[in-house]
Amino acid sequence: MGKMIGKQSISFENPPYIMEGASVVGPKEGEGPLGKLFDVVEQDSMMGQDSWEQAESLFQKEAVQKVLLKAKINKEEIRYIFAGDLLGQLIGTTFGIMEYEIPLFGIYGACSTMGEALSLAAIMVEAGNAEKVIAMTSSHFASAERQFRFPLEYGKQRPYSATWTVTGSGAVIIGKEKGFAKITGITTGKIVDYGVKDAQNMGACMAPAAAEVLCSHFQDFQCFPSDYDKIITGDLGLVGKTILFELLSQKGYDISKVHMDCGVEMFDASAQDTHAGGSGCACAATVLCGYVLKQLKKKAWKRILFIPTGALLSTISFNEGNAVPGIAHCVRIECC
Amino acid sequence: MGKMIGKQSISFENPPYIMEGASVVGPKEGEGPLGKLFDVVEQDSMMGQDSWEQAESLFQKEAVQKVLLKAKINKEEIRYIFAGDLLGQLIGTTFGIMEYEIPLFGIYGACSTMGEALSLAAIMVEAGNAEKVIAMTSSHFASAERQFRFPLEYGKQRPYSATWTVTGSGAVIIGKEKGFAKITGITTGKIVDYGVKDAQNMGACMAPAAAEVLCSHFQDFQCFPSDYDKIITGDLGLVGKTILFELLSQKGYDISKVHMDCGVEMFDASAQDTHAGGSGCACAATVLCGYVLKQLKKKAWKRILFIPTGALLSTISFNEGNAVPGIAHCVRIECC
Repeated sequence: MGKMIGKQSISFENPPYIMEGASVVGPKEGEGPLGKLFDVVEQDSMMGQDSWEQAESLFQKEAVQKVLLKAKINKEEIRYIFAGDLLGQLIGTTFGIMEYEIPLFGIYGACSTMGEALSLAAIMVEAGNAEKVIAMTSSHFASAERQFRFPLEYGKQRPYSATWTVTGSGAVIIGKEKGFAKITGITTGKIVDYGVKDAQNMGACMAPAAAEVLCSHFQDFQCFPSDYDKIITGDLGLVGKTILFELLSQKGYDISKVHMDCGVEMFDASAQDTHAGGSGCACAATVLCGYVLKQLKKKAWKRILFIPTGALLSTISFNEGNAVPGIAHCVRIECC
Repeated sequence: MGKMIGKQSISFENPPYIMEGASVVGPKEGEGPLGKLFDVVEQDSMMGQDSWEQAESLFQKEAVQKVLLKAKINKEEIRYIFAGDLLGQLIGTTFGIMEYEIPLFGIYGACSTMGEALSLAAIMVEAGNAEKVIAMTSSHFASAERQFRFPLEYGKQRPYSATWTVTGSGAVIIGKEKGFAKITGITTGKIVDYGVKDAQNMGACMAPAAAEVLCSHFQDFQCFPSDYDKIITGDLGLVGKTILFELLSQKGYDISKVHMDCGVEMFDASAQDTHAGGSGCACAATVLCGYVLKQLKKKAWKRILFIPTGALLSTISFNEGNAVPGIAHCVRIECC
């Protein structure tokens, strides 16, 4: 049974296991520093489809296929999927996983979605409501640019604060059967709005939410940054990371020695012209599956904190003059 | 602890309670047949705001305020909110509940969202992870028309199969403390696509998903329509209801004697020019809070099945030639 800890955390007394993870990425991600670590690098980011949105769905479809193959289980053994993406009404997810005919909980937390998916999946399994579930997300550079900023054809210059939405999908199987890692706790974030109104600077929108949920995590679990081998944020990028360090230092926490940001790791900013780093739901999800879980599997890291960060951006609210609030969710993962 | 039942259901051994519910609606809903039953009827559907989206957020804000007042509890006692709406990136929710500073699980299931919210809230409370949580949704006629169809200024004629999106918000507090009703089980739906491509006929898109999840529910719980005092679908409307009856009769189930559709109840179709009925996330949510829960409170109904139904419509996927798949989630509620 879960145990409420502090104000907004849960400590799992019978931690659910991470049984397997799989990552599928596009060509640009495959050329990045982590390229060799992903399960599948697709050479065509259109996946042979007519639209970017259809391509994104195929990334989800392939990630599910891959994680089932790696775990050697059938889709019938998966009781629920917790999934979402960045597109309006989650169409990446709808058309991506429809064929699997698995009961779905659609979720949205912008780029924090993988944190939300893992949290809810862990709660579901620990409570005895499922043997195995999938937690997953996707994003796609071109579908996200069309959704949130400018169609690619417009050819707008990107400022240095802009991040590059990762094309890909990451899927994890959470279950009762022993895996190589376990989810031992979660801290669920609140919406935090610092009034940032720059849709080309997502890092600045998300950093306050990451700082808020991290402080809550340290307080709720009565732990410190040094208790973790890695504290892994989602896609703050170079700009957001600096703001996070500053905000945390004001609260007396220094995570600089153990911090890693999936967005910073994903691309070689100078060689790949990606500016502030990678972003998108798939950024945290594919780095988790491609890199982080492997470190846990070989026990290079024993205990990590995974904090996907989301910017609650929408063109409608943004064009109506609203700011871009952020949200982030912490997931504590330990190797077995 | 929850107990897995059949293929896609959970039976709660220690059912979480519905402690309170609150409904806030717009003027048109207030003039409908259920008008007197809602807690608040706002006379201005703009809520004094500059945009429809901002107005929708205020409906959410007010619903939370109202349910807390009715339950006589402070916002600090609410550990989590499960909330969502129809707008891209859930901006109705983001700007509606931000000020409450309550950890959020953002969810999306189109108009089935209240079913998903209640399901996850019930799992959370039953597993001992929270004392009290809120499950809620909102929708707004004008923000939904802009999001999914045509801006109101365009003045497009609406076909008779079209439904009218309900303006309002419904919020429920689920908790461990005894309330007047309890959630005894859930059946979580899959995405079902019958290839319907008419964005003005949501009932036809959703009915197959409702039929699928209802059949699964009857099989998983080994029960029959006659075991319920009411089987309440979300917003199938007059067209979708007919299709649902037909699909269920092919499987040997007749729910006609106990069926009620929130969309059909919400408006007086001939007097209010609403065509096939009400729809939107708020349709099922406000009818649940305004009407259904009151029937349970006075024990007029002892056991009901609540099935909000969602059409996974998005203008992007729709304009790219995709169909509109549906999803629906069953929640079994019994009076105490």
